[in-house]
Amino acid sequence: MFSIVILGTGNVATHMFQAFQASSECSVIQVYNHQPDSLQVFEKSTATTTNLSELKQADLYLLCLKDDVIEKLANQIQTNSGIIAHTSGSQSILESANSGVFYPLQTFSKGSKLDYSKIPICLEANSEENLKILRAIGKCISTEIFEINSAQRQTLHLSAVFVCNFTNHLYSIGESICKEDNMPFDILKALIQETSKKIESNSPSDVQTGPAIRKDQSTIKRHLGQLQNKIHKDIYQLLTQSIIQKHD
Amino acid sequence: MFSIVILGTGNVATHMFQAFQASSECSVIQVYNHQPDSLQVFEKSTATTTNLSELKQADLYLLCLKDDVIEKLANQIQTNSGIIAHTSGSQSILESANSGVFYPLQTFSKGSKLDYSKIPICLEANSEENLKILRAIGKCISTEIFEINSAQRQTLHLSAVFVCNFTNHLYSIGESICKEDNMPFDILKALIQETSKKIESNSPSDVQTGPAIRKDQSTIKRHLGQLQNKIHKDIYQLLTQSIIQKHD
Repeated sequence: MFSIVILGTGNVATHMFQAFQASSECSVIQVYNHQPDSLQVFEKSTATTTNLSELKQADLYLLCLKDDVIEKLANQIQTNSGIIAHTSGSQSILESANSGVFYPLQTFSKGSKLDYSKIPICLEANSEENLKILRAIGKCISTEIFEINSAQRQTLHLSAVFVCNFTNHLYSIGESICKEDNMPFDILKALIQETSKKIESNSPSDVQTGPAIRKDQSTIKRHLGQLQNKIHKDIYQLLTQSIIQKHD
Repeated sequence: MFSIVILGTGNVATHMFQAFQASSECSVIQVYNHQPDSLQVFEKSTATTTNLSELKQADLYLLCLKDDVIEKLANQIQTNSGIIAHTSGSQSILESANSGVFYPLQTFSKGSKLDYSKIPICLEANSEENLKILRAIGKCISTEIFEINSAQRQTLHLSAVFVCNFTNHLYSIGESICKEDNMPFDILKALIQETSKKIESNSPSDVQTGPAIRKDQSTIKRHLGQLQNKIHKDIYQLLTQSIIQKHD
């Protein structure tokens, strides 16, 4: 049984907590946060604390924290042999005696249900032994375990911004264009699902469709005329130019 | 039984052909294209022609053609009472005696298998009677039938460019960033699927994540430093700015 202390109470912390608690081989023995209010939801299921000096001894201290506070908090953890690991896609591995990275490559929102067993977990550790422990802990929740160094992880994190964060923003632009014209956004959802499904078995550049790749200037011109919002117009122009440039 | 002549042999034509042929209430009695080679795949299943003056009498002439040739071809169709409809998201309804629009709101690629029954079909017709016929034909292949006028259809088509064509291009940028660093794109696919799944039951603007919405300037700065490709850098900057502007 692996004992885990989770530091943080945001979306990643909440989902990691749920994933570990569902595993018979892991136990989250404590959750830390400096604000007592945010600990309330965890109190029924495990011990909680707002005091870093009261952290229990554990196999893993999982820092599900904002990038800019990870190092500061990590330096205050007193542990004999526990691994101190963060879940950040962009921060380097910490310089503590036993350190690691436990980066779940997924988008976590409150309330969304996830199949944790399919979430890629990207691991890094400062020793072979610690990597072995992190791998064993990772396998408790997911079948998709990858060993990835910090540079590679930063590449993945950057790609993830394009395929997840920016993609979601395009969905939101699509929604606002529909709303302006009193059209239900729901009508686009089959298209959105198929667009993501298509790249499961195809390279996205092989299945590009739309006016840009057809160099259909009359449609492009009409679309630009329809767009009221200045920044939406700029995005339309830049992405169209990028598609044309890529496929030329 | 509705008799249908399909004009065109591209992705939309091919998928519409398959959808209608799977229905017991529709029959594609002929496929037209000016190039004989592209008709070969249809020859085993139905009549074909390269000559517009040889078109059979049908209930529906479905023009699955590039926008700029729709009108020209439509004017050459000689029919007694058949409806002449196109499948374009952006073209207005034709001015023939019996005219309509039969716009399947989906992305069609060769080789991809689709559940046609879930594809939204956006209909428009020049009379109540013709609308009734198009609705009956639409229901042969899909449960998602919408009556949409030309202005609304153009709005949907514009939104579709953002949520489908531009989204797919972001996937392709993610893939090229991974490739440059010898990382498998596959590792991002669970994230891509979850990003599209999340908006099934949430407004995309409510589930925006990532460095832009957190105004995490140090990550944004590092990402811009990582990007080698000039246009990818411009896209990163513009979409980041747009997310910050929207959520401010």
